[in-house]
Amino acid sequence: MTTSRLEAFSDGVLAIIITIMVLGMPLPKGVEWASLKPILPNFIGYLLSFVYVGIYWNNHHHMMNLAEKVNGKTLWYNLHLLFWLSLLPFATGWMGENNFDGITVIFYGIILLMSAVAWLILARGLGKVQENEKIRQAYGKDGKTKLSILVYLVGIVVSFFNARIGLAFFYLVAFLWIIPDLRVEKIAK
Amino acid sequence: MTTSRLEAFSDGVLAIIITIMVLGMPLPKGVEWASLKPILPNFIGYLLSFVYVGIYWNNHHHMMNLAEKVNGKTLWYNLHLLFWLSLLPFATGWMGENNFDGITVIFYGIILLMSAVAWLILARGLGKVQENEKIRQAYGKDGKTKLSILVYLVGIVVSFFNARIGLAFFYLVAFLWIIPDLRVEKIAK
Amino acid sequence: MTTSRLEAFSDGVLAIIITIMVLGMPLPKGVEWASLKPILPNFIGYLLSFVYVGIYWNNHHHMMNLAEKVNGKTLWYNLHLLFWLSLLPFATGWMGENNFDGITVIFYGIILLMSAVAWLILARGLGKVQENEKIRQAYGKDGKTKLSILVYLVGIVVSFFNARIGLAFFYLVAFLWIIPDLRVEKIAK
Amino acid sequence: MTTSRLEAFSDGVLAIIITIMVLGMPLPKGVEWASLKPILPNFIGYLLSFVYVGIYWNNHHHMMNLAEKVNGKTLWYNLHLLFWLSLLPFATGWMGENNFDGITVIFYGIILLMSAVAWLILARGLGKVQENEKIRQAYGKDGKTKLSILVYLVGIVVSFFNARIGLAFFYLVAFLWIIPDLRVEKIAK
Repeated sequence: MTTSRLEAFSDGVLAIIITIMVLGMPLPKGVEWASLKPILPNFIGYLLSFVYVGIYWNNHHHMMNLAEKVNGKTLWYNLHLLFWLSLLPFATGWMGENNFDGITVIFYGIILLMSAVAWLILARGLGKVQENEKIRQAYGKDGKTKLSILVYLVGIVVSFFNARIGLAFFYLVAFLWIIPDLRVEKIAK
Repeated sequence: MTTSRLEAFSDGVLAIIITIMVLGMPLPKGVEWASLKPILPNFIGYLLSFVYVGIYWNNHHHMMNLAEKVNGKTLWYNLHLLFWLSLLPFATGWMGENNFDGITVIFYGIILLMSAVAWLILARGLGKVQENEKIRQAYGKDGKTKLSILVYLVGIVVSFFNARIGLAFFYLVAFLWIIPDLRVEKIAK
Repeated sequence: MTTSRLEAFSDGVLAIIITIMVLGMPLPKGVEWASLKPILPNFIGYLLSFVYVGIYWNNHHHMMNLAEKVNGKTLWYNLHLLFWLSLLPFATGWMGENNFDGITVIFYGIILLMSAVAWLILARGLGKVQENEKIRQAYGKDGKTKLSILVYLVGIVVSFFNARIGLAFFYLVAFLWIIPDLRVEKIAK
Repeated sequence: MTTSRLEAFSDGVLAIIITIMVLGMPLPKGVEWASLKPILPNFIGYLLSFVYVGIYWNNHHHMMNLAEKVNGKTLWYNLHLLFWLSLLPFATGWMGENNFDGITVIFYGIILLMSAVAWLILARGLGKVQENEKIRQAYGKDGKTKLSILVYLVGIVVSFFNARIGLAFFYLVAFLWIIPDLRVEKIAK
């Protein structure tokens, strides 16, 4: 079985996740600039989730380029990743509607954490199926994903005390992934 | 006519069904962990439906790989399958909003049942069109789908008395389909 | 410019239209079978619109197979068709929410009518661009689309007096398109 | 890395944006023709946004045809463009719900403006990556996009005084892009 239909389906799901999140942003209740203020948390959350789905799409794209075949197990590992990512609009909505209240940020962090874990499982599973070494070499250690998981955990713990600072950790991970793509520098790869 | 655009369209519809179901999960009314509890039924239903769409996508993928051509009839058999699956978000929402009340679980089971019947019709129709024997051999008896239909029927009947146990039957069918994919074992194939 | 990306984009839009319509079906307000009754009109409308989008996808598929190239004009003719079809969920929702009240059925018929007109414009425009005669031969007269437009007009006029009978005309057109695909017989082609 | 998966993902996102906007059109509160009147602003906004997404899809299609490769930076420039376009349903909804009240039209104009800026950044970034001169030649000056940005700015300023006239400027830009496609004439290219 080739990877092309797996990629097409994943692209479809990721494209829909990234787009329907905007449906979770409530319309301002008024026509002054001030009426945009209450939905600022929604916007900040939307931006972060948009970036995360972008990162996953980008990395998914790269990893699948290295894969030559998939099996039944891999399809389910991939669906497992998409499952956690599909909960992002829900987690983003809850967080945005409640102005980054502690528990909503912790919940959001857990979804990010589970997505990263699902990513590791997918990478490992894909690596096992391939005959060549490419994926195992590129994603064998995958220090960056493990570092991300660590920062998510720190962010989750911090959110019990101060959710805004906890959220900053989740933004930090996003920057860690975008910046190398922008070739400003390569950190922790 | 080749199968490629049929696959692309089906992938699109299935990707959208699997993703918009999350829109049916209401945001918690509060910011405590306890506020997640009332939407636990929605989540359990979402998980089951996500898995079912995944199973159908997976099997659709396999069957279409064996098909070499489609005709007008096949396109409609395929749309007929997508129609029943497109009602899953609706059935999932009704069931989740009403905490697995008997009739909502029965309704959910009927949608699963009709999807399986539509699958049989599609498999039979596709088999007739092909010049080679592959689909007829692979899906001629299709004992597993017929077994699933039987379990759906049992689950529906049981739900008249106890909806939670009825629901367990629908989970059971899902496991019957995932487990062989995970190569843990091959049952009833 | 080739037709492939035009097809991919149209497939995407049609897949989304056909799927998000189900979001317009309100959840039953209750857990008895009787609570499904008030949403029966929504369901009947959903079924009809699902079938129409299926018909357009099917025919779009066929016509694009005959096309070898598209130009800027054609892209806009195609978007024009998608625009009218994108209003189907809206028209379906209005009709379903108001139990097929006269004006809502008329409005629904107008959307079907405009879609058929947009189809004629697209077929004509595509035909002009091609170097071979295939599309001009297959869609030059396009008697079936013109007959459909006539029946839509009759249905719209009838709906001023009796919306249910008017709606029956719209179902009639759908059957005229599905039946030949099912090869039961070929009418008015 | 080739452009094909970038195109597929962008097509998906644009197809979803163009389609979910219709979910933002509220159903009429009544069954008279007059009940359509209050949602006329929603419809006018929907039409404009539909056309804009169509224009971007069309131009994206053309530009990607000239591109031979993309890099990590380009992927993010593309996501940056999709981000602003993904806010169109939100801006359209706010504007439509408030009958083109000044600030909502200004906000809508800002989204259009930022999308055009994101387009310029993408075009420049893509040009730098290519080995051949095609994109740099076709989009090096890109006078038409710059003219559009100017007209957006004028429209935004005018909207502080009269939002309807401001909106007319945004319609004007749309016509500037559609008309050449329709080969009626070529302006400012």
